[in-house]
Amino acid sequence: MTASTIAFSGSALDRADHIRANSEKLAELTNWRARLLKLDGLAPVIAPEGGLEWGTLADADPAAELVFLGLSAEGRACFAAVSPALIGSVAPPSPALWQVMSLLAPDELATYGGAKALVDWHARHRFCARCGSATVLAKGGWQRNCTNGACKGEHFPRVDPVTIMTVECDGTLLLGRQPRFPPRRFSALAGFVEPGETIEEAVAREVHEEAGVRVRDVTYVCSQPWPFPSSLMIACHAHADDPALTIDETELDDARWFSRAEVAHAMSGAEDGAFIAPPPFAVAHHLLKWWLEQ
Amino acid sequence: MTASTIAFSGSALDRADHIRANSEKLAELTNWRARLLKLDGLAPVIAPEGGLEWGTLADADPAAELVFLGLSAEGRACFAAVSPALIGSVAPPSPALWQVMSLLAPDELATYGGAKALVDWHARHRFCARCGSATVLAKGGWQRNCTNGACKGEHFPRVDPVTIMTVECDGTLLLGRQPRFPPRRFSALAGFVEPGETIEEAVAREVHEEAGVRVRDVTYVCSQPWPFPSSLMIACHAHADDPALTIDETELDDARWFSRAEVAHAMSGAEDGAFIAPPPFAVAHHLLKWWLEQ
Repeated sequence: MTASTIAFSGSALDRADHIRANSEKLAELTNWRARLLKLDGLAPVIAPEGGLEWGTLADADPAAELVFLGLSAEGRACFAAVSPALIGSVAPPSPALWQVMSLLAPDELATYGGAKALVDWHARHRFCARCGSATVLAKGGWQRNCTNGACKGEHFPRVDPVTIMTVECDGTLLLGRQPRFPPRRFSALAGFVEPGETIEEAVAREVHEEAGVRVRDVTYVCSQPWPFPSSLMIACHAHADDPALTIDETELDDARWFSRAEVAHAMSGAEDGAFIAPPPFAVAHHLLKWWLEQ
Repeated sequence: MTASTIAFSGSALDRADHIRANSEKLAELTNWRARLLKLDGLAPVIAPEGGLEWGTLADADPAAELVFLGLSAEGRACFAAVSPALIGSVAPPSPALWQVMSLLAPDELATYGGAKALVDWHARHRFCARCGSATVLAKGGWQRNCTNGACKGEHFPRVDPVTIMTVECDGTLLLGRQPRFPPRRFSALAGFVEPGETIEEAVAREVHEEAGVRVRDVTYVCSQPWPFPSSLMIACHAHADDPALTIDETELDDARWFSRAEVAHAMSGAEDGAFIAPPPFAVAHHLLKWWLEQ
């Protein structure tokens, strides 16, 4: 599976890691030629001609912190602003946000997603978790440093690994419904990787916790950065020998085994079948597509 | 590759996730029959008969917070203590710690590693990153809640995904030396996954940043929980067409292409060859072994 088919992957920006730690170079690039990603809260702003709207650093709130996103293909420094209005806010994705994001080309959606995850992290991480003192942005926004000289804690943008998995038993596929899903939507089960477990162990634990099913032969399929707030979706496939279900009703409304024909029908976009498939921007969509192609 | 061959994986504890949110059940299990993992600082204590030493909750510092690790095979609740002496400490692995850990069976090393990552997280996350107020342990140690009623921030144990990769070009393998490595040791290149990129994109970026090499066809090989402090190592393999190296000397002392015969010699445990292989507890060891078996 090519990365460009997965939503939020395939940004054309060069992250230019070597510039982040070089404060002289960074200051030099923070000039009138630099581009500022325009945000409406944490949502992207669409340019009149379509695509992401970029301004200049003069458009940023003077009190904002600037995050260095990387270099454009023409070598211009790209930034996003952590404006004071965003501080402390938590913004789950809304139907309106999905609407705006659907207007973006894949590489622009990826650039926006990465910027959103990073700006959101700065907005929610103002203080040192170790000592409670204020922190300040460092290394072009790829670090925050504690201002308490006795602590000097260094903090890095968080990325939370999440496993998401399809399970196969006797030619049928296990899918589940979370309470927040639209009616009749079923998707792959999912859960955060915890300290002390491999990806494969996390997959087996989640499927057992949520559906009571024991799995074997977990294989990795693909991955996706998911900026709500900042997860790394790790999509896997597993096999089960016993289809008996014990559903954890605190996590799932329902879980069922679907036939290949039912999955193929739903994935064709039809809404009159056994269930409605996950949308194309979800990595679960790719997992189901991958399974149908096997 | 079976999970049990990878260090820090394969714990026999049942994480019993359903108990964490059930404060009544958790209180009931916090009894005289419960087991407490004995720690010396953040290092494991070895029992006189070998293996991890477990005590009872009476052995914990009365001021300690208790973290619920899960249920043993006999159904006994297992805990670890976040003692006041650990608060704020940062403990990188030491030769002495490796010595002690080498005495543990694989499943016990995994139980220790998961507990260490979790206790360490509590020791370094005492305050709310959003508002700076004190936090308190919740859900058996799988969450910390902000005590500021106007904030109510919820914080979860951190797991940092890291890519670690071998790169193949014309039958040779790219390995590098970090400045902190023992003399003549070479290992796989590695780096943190950042917000806004897939695993495959992170692999390509790291190899280009550290060695100046462009890669294609990234494949996932295996994963490992790494409790220093709490990473998820995601081991991959990639291919390159151009072996020209541009080494980032701020990251690496050296990087070189090694022949199959040189890798096989080093992996036999020999120290008189072109380089010394990464040790068996490192997932890089498994990557090199996997490559030799292809």
